[in-house]
Amino acid sequence: MSNRKYSIGIDFGTESARTVLVDLADGREVATAVFPYPDGVIDEKLPGSNIRLEPDWALQNPADYVQAVKDTVPRVLKESGVAAEDVIGIGIDFTACTMLPAKADGTPLCYLPEFRDKPHSWVKLWKHHAAQPEADRINQVARERGETWLSRYGGKISSEWFFPKALQILNDAPEIYEAADRLIEAADWIVWQLTGVETRNSCTAGYKAIWSKREGFPSPDFFAAVHPRMRNIVKEKMSETILPLGQRAGGLTAEMAVATGLRPGTAVAVANVDAHVSVPAATVVEPGRMVMIMGTSICHMVLGEEQKIVPGMCGVVEDGILPGFFGFEAGQSCVGDHFAWFVENCVPMHYQAEAQKAGLNLHQYLEKRAAVLKPGESGLLALDWWNGNRSVLVDADLTGLLLGATLATKAEEIYRALIEATAYGTRIIIETFEQSGVAVRELVATGGLPERNKLLMQIFADVTGREIKVAATSQAGSLGSAMHGAVAAGAKAGGYDTIQQAAAKMAHLKDEKYVPIPEHKRVYDQLYAEYVTLHDYFGRGANDVMKRLKRIKAEARS
Amino acid sequence: MSNRKYSIGIDFGTESARTVLVDLADGREVATAVFPYPDGVIDEKLPGSNIRLEPDWALQNPADYVQAVKDTVPRVLKESGVAAEDVIGIGIDFTACTMLPAKADGTPLCYLPEFRDKPHSWVKLWKHHAAQPEADRINQVARERGETWLSRYGGKISSEWFFPKALQILNDAPEIYEAADRLIEAADWIVWQLTGVETRNSCTAGYKAIWSKREGFPSPDFFAAVHPRMRNIVKEKMSETILPLGQRAGGLTAEMAVATGLRPGTAVAVANVDAHVSVPAATVVEPGRMVMIMGTSICHMVLGEEQKIVPGMCGVVEDGILPGFFGFEAGQSCVGDHFAWFVENCVPMHYQAEAQKAGLNLHQYLEKRAAVLKPGESGLLALDWWNGNRSVLVDADLTGLLLGATLATKAEEIYRALIEATAYGTRIIIETFEQSGVAVRELVATGGLPERNKLLMQIFADVTGREIKVAATSQAGSLGSAMHGAVAAGAKAGGYDTIQQAAAKMAHLKDEKYVPIPEHKRVYDQLYAEYVTLHDYFGRGANDVMKRLKRIKAEARS
Repeated sequence: MSNRKYSIGIDFGTESARTVLVDLADGREVATAVFPYPDGVIDEKLPGSNIRLEPDWALQNPADYVQAVKDTVPRVLKESGVAAEDVIGIGIDFTACTMLPAKADGTPLCYLPEFRDKPHSWVKLWKHHAAQPEADRINQVARERGETWLSRYGGKISSEWFFPKALQILNDAPEIYEAADRLIEAADWIVWQLTGVETRNSCTAGYKAIWSKREGFPSPDFFAAVHPRMRNIVKEKMSETILPLGQRAGGLTAEMAVATGLRPGTAVAVANVDAHVSVPAATVVEPGRMVMIMGTSICHMVLGEEQKIVPGMCGVVEDGILPGFFGFEAGQSCVGDHFAWFVENCVPMHYQAEAQKAGLNLHQYLEKRAAVLKPGESGLLALDWWNGNRSVLVDADLTGLLLGATLATKAEEIYRALIEATAYGTRIIIETFEQSGVAVRELVATGGLPERNKLLMQIFADVTGREIKVAATSQAGSLGSAMHGAVAAGAKAGGYDTIQQAAAKMAHLKDEKYVPIPEHKRVYDQLYAEYVTLHDYFGRGANDVMKRLKRIKAEARS
Repeated sequence: MSNRKYSIGIDFGTESARTVLVDLADGREVATAVFPYPDGVIDEKLPGSNIRLEPDWALQNPADYVQAVKDTVPRVLKESGVAAEDVIGIGIDFTACTMLPAKADGTPLCYLPEFRDKPHSWVKLWKHHAAQPEADRINQVARERGETWLSRYGGKISSEWFFPKALQILNDAPEIYEAADRLIEAADWIVWQLTGVETRNSCTAGYKAIWSKREGFPSPDFFAAVHPRMRNIVKEKMSETILPLGQRAGGLTAEMAVATGLRPGTAVAVANVDAHVSVPAATVVEPGRMVMIMGTSICHMVLGEEQKIVPGMCGVVEDGILPGFFGFEAGQSCVGDHFAWFVENCVPMHYQAEAQKAGLNLHQYLEKRAAVLKPGESGLLALDWWNGNRSVLVDADLTGLLLGATLATKAEEIYRALIEATAYGTRIIIETFEQSGVAVRELVATGGLPERNKLLMQIFADVTGREIKVAATSQAGSLGSAMHGAVAAGAKAGGYDTIQQAAAKMAHLKDEKYVPIPEHKRVYDQLYAEYVTLHDYFGRGANDVMKRLKRIKAEARS
């Protein structure tokens, strides 16, 4: 038995799980293993069948999650050479809301032969978008009843969340709803599989299932108004015991110990969400520093001392990110996706040829050409709504806009305008937070984009007028989970008693940072003012042309 | 000497001249010859020198025009086998305003050794855009003095026109201005070379030099207010004798007869402009039928019985298109250019590969893919202002807009949206004419686009709700000029006494026509309403973001 202690973090993503074994002394990532889910995202037919899914469906197989644990944990142990007794804790984070129906013993309904052929018995992945009618119903009833919790979620809940998905099961497959003893986040379910103990965590409960520490879940009367059979959904199929993050859910079961090579009883933390667990991994354990998890989309996470109602944010949850704080979340639905769309659909052939000659991919080549442009030089301005607006307007029906093109406009100018548009989108989120009393003094970035696109990072600094630091880790989810595993183990076992203490030792920033360039900021202030005018004109009802075009489009396609 | 009589039309374009020999009985184009100008468009340095031109300059060499005549006329005679005595008339049309300074005997100043090195001694081509400050000055003085002629030109004259170019010579090279006995349209100059007689035509005088049949040119007081030295510009360097179109300017000189193989004294018509001469060639000799000359841009020409002031049109000129009518002109500055920009800058590599496999060029391939889309199906809407707005807003500082994009938007959808935008642009021109009392019942198309893009033509019919017929000729300029040559010769010589009579025999429509499809029209009516809202919002001062972006762009580049 050595002096050094370790913990394991498992980040359950959309396509794969990523497991990291971390040194508790300094957060060093000693070994990593990735496991692609055999059934991946199920959006065409149920595995091993010809049963077709409707459009907008996205399911997963819970067996893939268990297999991921059994595959990756032995691999990181082996690769690191760390002894099982020196691994004192495990944490996990998950996509959310990703939920499933299960029996009282935790068996997913899709494991049972009588339900296997029913799509509603499988895991509904976060990006299952088929419950929009149910979300609409819930929002309508909430507005009619004046439910006060609605304001904590920017005035509208998403079809991706827990109750729309639950209601869709009830509406479309009441027999599944009846047979389900539990409706549970996959995050909590995998912790249950590891520990044999069913727990629910404050993060998914708060951000995805309308729970708050002070008010609990919406009332049975509310649920009954949505659907009579749903009156007691919380009591019948969920739990009112919601645990704060970092708490020990239980110890690893004997069976899981054998399967993973870890010791039975190893502390397992309650579940967490990928974006939220990244916050302490990016060194942020206090108010005023916003974490941006920057990839296909951006999640903006910031802590506050008090509950504030911020227009159009995704949610505010007490203990939702770190115990003892209100966690605020906002988001942009189209960032990396935006650039990928552009590169796939709008870049002419000769650029490809020139990129190849220069040994660059198209993103790199466009970045290089865009980097020599000055702010404002293209004359272009875009609204970053190619995938709707998640915050501040919370409106999926908004669409993209590009303004200012001339016959001399080049692809790299449009590419840069799209980057700038996403930066304006982040700035309006930050300003909305600040106007609502939630301070945002500094930005800390994590995710794939900061590692790939320095131009983008500088533009974000110039547009927002804030320094941007970058988390040292490239796997903030797994590291954050490992940190929570260390907290679940506690200081006596060689871990930490609080996530703050864990972050102080285990989370680091890169040396590089992005500092706003004053002359860029000056130009971007002018352009941002134009962005806000267009944002409000097209987004706040003065001209609903985008929605009317969507309606005409739907009619044309029907 | 045969029974059949012929005439020759010469269309002096931007890059080349195109000569056609036409059978007067039926307009059959018997032989064609094209002559690319040896010096082409001079926009970098003066020919045979290292004298560099400023940006926005565009010059030509008048010797190229003469050479074009001497090259092409013998070729069409030879190719057709027609005898010189059976060619009874010649007409020419030209780009405009394309103008030059000359001596009293017609010698261009750039032929003279003492001026050859001075850029201002050469021909200023229509697209010489360096006289914008002079245009601004003229417009300002006209507004201040309340000059009534301004309303005939949509409230603003263009930097491309005659007096801005003349004033630029005076401002930058007063010695050239002084040395010039004549400032003259190249159109009139080449007729002078052919006949030895100096004439001025009502078309260029009216549309480019602010002349009207009833009011003449602006007053000496006006010119003096612009620049004291300009007071007597008309009297000193131009002519107040303006001849109607189709009139005989003179007979071919002995020298030109030798050079071309035609007979001395062959009737030569007064000069004309390319777009305007196309109108009778497209069979239009009466009000109510608008001719669209569709290429890189569109010129919209329609005849009226009375002078009407149409907001934002290019001009109304009595006798400007056909004697006896008011000729109205409007235009869109970015049509074929728009699609060329898109194909050059925005189409991804795999489309190129698929187009090649299908044996199509990119335009054809995009048209094929765009043709299967239904109106409204893309959810996209564009403003066709990539090159500013020529009519109805007359504002070069407006820029392009694309709205409605999503992550599923494809190149062919954008391509179709750009086509639709140009059709909306034409519809708003038509509606502005009609609201001002100028009827537009039917459209007749000519130019390159109608031959190449059937989808575009159908969309124009669907959007405007008007039948579109297509001129039979693919060289409406040359044919129209030949028709005017026949009128200059007159019926006694075997030609025609009026352009109407010539058109009745010599101009034809194709059998094909484009008829609006009611269900498309219904959808396009909705989309057009959205276009008008955006057109007015961005174009009429509610949100001048495009101009502010241009200013920021100019600052960034300075």
